[in-house]
Amino acid sequence: MVRINDNYQKLQGSYLFSTIAKKVSEYSASHPDAKIIRLGIGDVTRPLTPSVIRALHDSVDEMADEATFRGYAPDLGYDFLRKAICDNDYRAGGCDISEDEIFVSDGAKPDSGNIQEIFDGANRIAVCDPVYPVYVDSNVMAGRAGDYVESTGTYSNVIYMPCTKENGFKPEIPDETPDLIYLCFPNNPTGATVTKSELQEWVDYANKNGSVIIFDAAYEAYISSADVPHSIYECSGAKECAIELHSFSKNAGFTGLRLGYAVVPKELVRGGVSLNALWARRHATKYNGAPYIVQRAGEAVYSPEGKREIQGLIDYYIENAKYILSGLKSVGYTVYGGVDSPYIWLATPDGMTSWEFFDHLLGTANVVGTPGVGFGSCGEGYFRLTAFGSHENTREAVDRIKKL
Amino acid sequence: MVRINDNYQKLQGSYLFSTIAKKVSEYSASHPDAKIIRLGIGDVTRPLTPSVIRALHDSVDEMADEATFRGYAPDLGYDFLRKAICDNDYRAGGCDISEDEIFVSDGAKPDSGNIQEIFDGANRIAVCDPVYPVYVDSNVMAGRAGDYVESTGTYSNVIYMPCTKENGFKPEIPDETPDLIYLCFPNNPTGATVTKSELQEWVDYANKNGSVIIFDAAYEAYISSADVPHSIYECSGAKECAIELHSFSKNAGFTGLRLGYAVVPKELVRGGVSLNALWARRHATKYNGAPYIVQRAGEAVYSPEGKREIQGLIDYYIENAKYILSGLKSVGYTVYGGVDSPYIWLATPDGMTSWEFFDHLLGTANVVGTPGVGFGSCGEGYFRLTAFGSHENTREAVDRIKKL
Repeated sequence: MVRINDNYQKLQGSYLFSTIAKKVSEYSASHPDAKIIRLGIGDVTRPLTPSVIRALHDSVDEMADEATFRGYAPDLGYDFLRKAICDNDYRAGGCDISEDEIFVSDGAKPDSGNIQEIFDGANRIAVCDPVYPVYVDSNVMAGRAGDYVESTGTYSNVIYMPCTKENGFKPEIPDETPDLIYLCFPNNPTGATVTKSELQEWVDYANKNGSVIIFDAAYEAYISSADVPHSIYECSGAKECAIELHSFSKNAGFTGLRLGYAVVPKELVRGGVSLNALWARRHATKYNGAPYIVQRAGEAVYSPEGKREIQGLIDYYIENAKYILSGLKSVGYTVYGGVDSPYIWLATPDGMTSWEFFDHLLGTANVVGTPGVGFGSCGEGYFRLTAFGSHENTREAVDRIKKL
Repeated sequence: MVRINDNYQKLQGSYLFSTIAKKVSEYSASHPDAKIIRLGIGDVTRPLTPSVIRALHDSVDEMADEATFRGYAPDLGYDFLRKAICDNDYRAGGCDISEDEIFVSDGAKPDSGNIQEIFDGANRIAVCDPVYPVYVDSNVMAGRAGDYVESTGTYSNVIYMPCTKENGFKPEIPDETPDLIYLCFPNNPTGATVTKSELQEWVDYANKNGSVIIFDAAYEAYISSADVPHSIYECSGAKECAIELHSFSKNAGFTGLRLGYAVVPKELVRGGVSLNALWARRHATKYNGAPYIVQRAGEAVYSPEGKREIQGLIDYYIENAKYILSGLKSVGYTVYGGVDSPYIWLATPDGMTSWEFFDHLLGTANVVGTPGVGFGSCGEGYFRLTAFGSHENTREAVDRIKKL
């Protein structure tokens, strides 16, 4: 008799964004005339840019011709894309990362869910609270998180690092020593950032303890402040302790195209084993490469024209972030993030819980956001809005909220 | 101190096809003038068909326009594709499968590697020997396979079902009762098929014992014999015990586009838990949907024009299979498969081992195939050729082999 993976039974409710989608769809059904504006899920709204579209059309044409048709992609990604990534995202910034440390994938979500597989089941993880749910849930599924404790809303074997207004939403070194440390800066959901010297402390801590940092840099493109690092590899010693995850979703609008990459440096060795080799083996066995046409689209992001276009997208969304920040402040909300980040993290008014504010905002302003508590117990009393809407929708949403 | 997943250390050598690629690349470097013909890895060579190309261009254009741009896909796949799959691959054949039992993915390889995750680590798996390596390796990584036994070339906790010329390369019910049974028909690598009544025996056996069958139907499109089932759901009771995996790679040439799907029926329940719900949760947490443009390409495969084109591809490759079969037979080879399958399974001549024949064929005929032993110890003394080359290359390869 087959037995199921009982760890799945420890997962709480359904995945946050599925729950939101269900609530919105129910509200929509009972209020068919409501013009709902979604600033909840971190999905982009701007179309793909001209150079990306051109690369897609051109590569689709290659697939139509026997002479240029491409079958299976190399497991770890095409050389042309790995080189473009290295040159632009690392070498240009002075980080010594080479092509064979880049693993092209179908996005940072799958990578951040799958990366735990190469580590032992007994390792203890540390996560920020609030946190992107995938880090925790993927470890729950693998049995690494322990049991869910109803009273605290936490898992028994996870080390939570509270990110509160008191510490500026920056995690502090925990009392217990974790084996795997998940960090995401600019942060999802709070929009907080760390300086290079703050991140260096984490790198030093990990190297001292033999921990590994999973550094999620999905929002790196939104950084404009000079002292905020774009990559953990700007810190000295990071190649000995850190894996970095990147996405093409939030800079180039690839949420529906699916492309990302992980960096696993060759210096990253534990117990005499190269993590680069382990991740390569995982890719070769369980993955079959990102589509050729999507990898060509990714390459186009790094062309001179592509870079200008992508900067245009980021400027567009950052303008939204500014509008949300200033609009909410003007009516007395306490707001965080939104500067080097597309996420605005607001304190719910009048002592409302996160979900009460979700229902309130949906019911009165027809605006959808994400309840902070959905990201962890320290998110209770907070709410995430994203800057990924259109200018028009974002302004209307803010104006509606201002009138409440 | 972080610990790595020690199970990875139990994996043997590198992945079969990586080893072959390395050998070929070394041979190529030392023989730059050799015109190497690859009939090894199961990659297709025909370009994508016109209706697929049109669907790609059209959907790329949608992604360029704010009004039609698509961001995150639904986790489980777009309704238009799930409906096309249900209507064409199931309802048309009399199988009662519904849209919410279809999980669109980036291919049958990832699905067959990931599906084991929803099962307990203590379950015992049964696989055919020879076998597609991903079934075993993904279970090795999860710690379910036990230790590698050098003397037998097998894992201590895996139940191997020998597929030999004596049993027509069809597995027999094993002595020990497995929890998870991996079956692939038409088979990779042997090209063998089972009849509906033979498959019914497996379904009955699984239902009697509470086992679950992972049925890999990646080569279903090559079936022309009337008594060979296209889906395990043609067997009565299969919805209570079987998960089916499909690929768009081998029928529509999507190896470089990446699209597949898994069927997890709602009737499939173990320990009171719905496997459909578990797989949905896995998708929602660790996957982010197949690209919109690729799902539109998949939909085009089911249009009347698309179906005609796909049949043209299959006919093309089956013509190759016939040429290989008859050519090898004419010079005395003992050959199997190649009728309802793109794979030809041949007995190596003169008592050569599989790898000896690989080196021999590469060195004398400059033809690359796949050593049977790479698929398991019962594959020793066999060799796989694929029908996925061009007519020209396939004929030249066979003619070269005939002259040896």
